[in-house]
Amino acid sequence: MTDYTATVTVRLKRGVLDPEAETTQQALERLGFELDDLRSADRFEVDLAAADADEAAERAGEMAERLLANPTIHDYDVAVAER
Amino acid sequence: MTDYTATVTVRLKRGVLDPEAETTQQALERLGFELDDLRSADRFEVDLAAADADEAAERAGEMAERLLANPTIHDYDVAVAER
Repeated sequence: MTDYTATVTVRLKRGVLDPEAETTQQALERLGFELDDLRSADRFEVDLAAADADEAAERAGEMAERLLANPTIHDYDVAVAER
Repeated sequence: MTDYTATVTVRLKRGVLDPEAETTQQALERLGFELDDLRSADRFEVDLAAADADEAAERAGEMAERLLANPTIHDYDVAVAER
């Protein structure tokens, strides 16, 4: 078994309202910053042992499907690196 | 001016308690997943126009310092890509 860190990034699908991002953008603009758009995402770094990188990615994908992401409103991607 | 996306990743400093991550890890383990550790982070993707990549990174860093991160408990990093 090898130790991996699987990084799952969960973001709202395009078109789904993101009130947190809107509020953050407005606050930045009130502070005088100029920006065109802002999107927020949640990121989970999971340390796990797996036979290989594919298995680590597959297990992290399952974690996303079952808990970390809501498939109705979220997209997610998984990146795996050896620890 | 060039259009960039600056990605600011904000995570709790090592040693700072992360109740959200702990709760998420316990929930995953109750679902039968095996993992060694889990860390959560917030990610902000900021679309902005800047003279060059350095200026984009600098402005995103200022956004982190003034709003997106709490320097007492958070570390952050900035990655810039042309849009």
